[in-house]
Amino acid sequence: MSNLTISSSDLFQFTKSIFIKIGCSDVDATLATNVLIQADLRGIDSHGVARLTGYIRLYESGRINIKPNIAIVREKASIFALNGDSGLGLVVAPRAMEIAIEKTHLHGSGFGAVKNSNHFGIAAYHAMMALEHNFIGMSMTNASPLVAPTNSKERMLGTNPMCYAIPAGKYPPFILDMATSAAANGKLEIAERLGKPIPQGWVETNEGQDTTNPHDLKAGGNLLPLGSDKELGSHKGYGLGALVDILSGVLPGANFGPWVPPFVSFLPVLPNLPGQGLGHFLGAMDISGFDEPAEFTKRMELWIERFKTATPKNADQPVIIHGEPEYNLQQERALSGIPLVEKVATDLKTLAEKYQLEHPFSSKNIV
Amino acid sequence: MSNLTISSSDLFQFTKSIFIKIGCSDVDATLATNVLIQADLRGIDSHGVARLTGYIRLYESGRINIKPNIAIVREKASIFALNGDSGLGLVVAPRAMEIAIEKTHLHGSGFGAVKNSNHFGIAAYHAMMALEHNFIGMSMTNASPLVAPTNSKERMLGTNPMCYAIPAGKYPPFILDMATSAAANGKLEIAERLGKPIPQGWVETNEGQDTTNPHDLKAGGNLLPLGSDKELGSHKGYGLGALVDILSGVLPGANFGPWVPPFVSFLPVLPNLPGQGLGHFLGAMDISGFDEPAEFTKRMELWIERFKTATPKNADQPVIIHGEPEYNLQQERALSGIPLVEKVATDLKTLAEKYQLEHPFSSKNIV
Repeated sequence: MSNLTISSSDLFQFTKSIFIKIGCSDVDATLATNVLIQADLRGIDSHGVARLTGYIRLYESGRINIKPNIAIVREKASIFALNGDSGLGLVVAPRAMEIAIEKTHLHGSGFGAVKNSNHFGIAAYHAMMALEHNFIGMSMTNASPLVAPTNSKERMLGTNPMCYAIPAGKYPPFILDMATSAAANGKLEIAERLGKPIPQGWVETNEGQDTTNPHDLKAGGNLLPLGSDKELGSHKGYGLGALVDILSGVLPGANFGPWVPPFVSFLPVLPNLPGQGLGHFLGAMDISGFDEPAEFTKRMELWIERFKTATPKNADQPVIIHGEPEYNLQQERALSGIPLVEKVATDLKTLAEKYQLEHPFSSKNIV
Repeated sequence: MSNLTISSSDLFQFTKSIFIKIGCSDVDATLATNVLIQADLRGIDSHGVARLTGYIRLYESGRINIKPNIAIVREKASIFALNGDSGLGLVVAPRAMEIAIEKTHLHGSGFGAVKNSNHFGIAAYHAMMALEHNFIGMSMTNASPLVAPTNSKERMLGTNPMCYAIPAGKYPPFILDMATSAAANGKLEIAERLGKPIPQGWVETNEGQDTTNPHDLKAGGNLLPLGSDKELGSHKGYGLGALVDILSGVLPGANFGPWVPPFVSFLPVLPNLPGQGLGHFLGAMDISGFDEPAEFTKRMELWIERFKTATPKNADQPVIIHGEPEYNLQQERALSGIPLVEKVATDLKTLAEKYQLEHPFSSKNIV
């Protein structure tokens, strides 16, 4: 089977029906599916339906509560803590963001720390929920340990992404969605598949040595923090990863550091956990509490225009505004469909057989 | 004159008397001096009294309003925008932080965007104001352009630092205070003074070429964003610098990007500015709105203990917790005094003569 392209609506229907099959409510299944499809539309293929099998396996291993009682456990006017009750992060995080947005309508800003959740997909989905209200949104999550802090050769932090979404008037919103490690795991997997060397500064061996071998991560090595080495500022990447871990994990009472439960169901959860599940931190701020929104929009458009026309090193490679390439891809894939690599297509077919659903690659569905 | 060490209280008295001489109120002079001395105590020597002459020159060139009418121009319950009225950033930023803290007491969090300010010294001073309330504090500021975005050879962003301060019970607070460029300007100046090559990844020439020559920055080159090059994630450092610029500059209506006014008084301010002065973004969150503070403290102490004992690459170089080295230096320098390099001591002496004050290095003051 070679690569297939499938319409986002067909992929949506299939994915949603899987979540329904494992017992999700219609609302939750829609929410979870939206998060995954949005990733595929935006070109973050590693975080889209490619992970559906992983979420289902987590469910099958008893680590997902499919009917969670998601509840605020503590709050003040503009902040709150949420217990995700072991629900899908794909469902828990948007719920948290809804509460943050409600608080923002009432008080100008809203920030929530979430415990007892699971992986929440792309950070951008949640932060971007703020945009339709003309709010600034942000989201972060801790994740299972892969990154060694500066000076260490032990996996202590996840790739702990952070995302900020800022409305930009007539331009696509500014979306900074970044792992706090030097390289995202997805890029590494591509190099691994192709057997190509990786740049020095992405990975170290389990003995803490520099390496360009992409297989050294799975052999027990570590991802390096953004900044890669001490001279180039790896303590900053480590610090950002630590910040995400503290706000997402330590603050609400989720697990943190090396105790964050693994996404893959075949790895064991450590004993004597200090918290519950993994954690997120999300929030929103109302632009109209800082200035007339129209004035802000004018300045934001000027900011984008000025940065896009900054003198490039090469005339054919202009400065990129964060979020614009993903926005353009989203428009394109909404029309032309979502390409799936063979492995993902096969995984989805296996899921279809297992759950006795029409698989999504019947000839009528292929674009 | 060789290096001198002077007690922090003598340095405080001298610095404060300079601010009084140029017309600051007693309260403002104390505040501004506190920010500078705190930098020297914490070992951020580049941001302490070493900059006093620079602030005075800005005042002399008419760019500082010494009796500012700092006022909230817009607000909602938990957010606000402040006009610094061209005051010293050393005074405007702590005022903004006081308002953020007041809002946090009332509503759980408080975030403020500030326009029409000037350089605010170390970010850590402002974020750390939250700590005595057992709040989490944060601060960021834009700064005059030195950093080229990924793909560009034009200075578009300042070193745009961000700081997060988090209480940690019996341990020194977690303080992440970082420039979003690969290297801080201070480190570069040391290499320049010694004529030593710098690591590749700190600076590019004005033609956008890699360089290890520390003089290439002053020759019109650029600092590089955290991540240094595309392969190692410079788009992330560029994105973080952009985020700081948008929240600090675009949001409140300060200048942003290449329009941020230079700190040095001999460089011209650009015409047709899109905003007022430079900008900050600061805030606080009440830990007790997320969990019992004692429970948070227990987890935060465990976080620190676990990270400090992460397996090191070299047994004699353990993992460092952000803020601990500066905390230790602060304790030490509070007792043993603050060392000043010859150039700074000479600058202060010149200031003393100019303002007819007893210079701070009379023999009785030298430790």
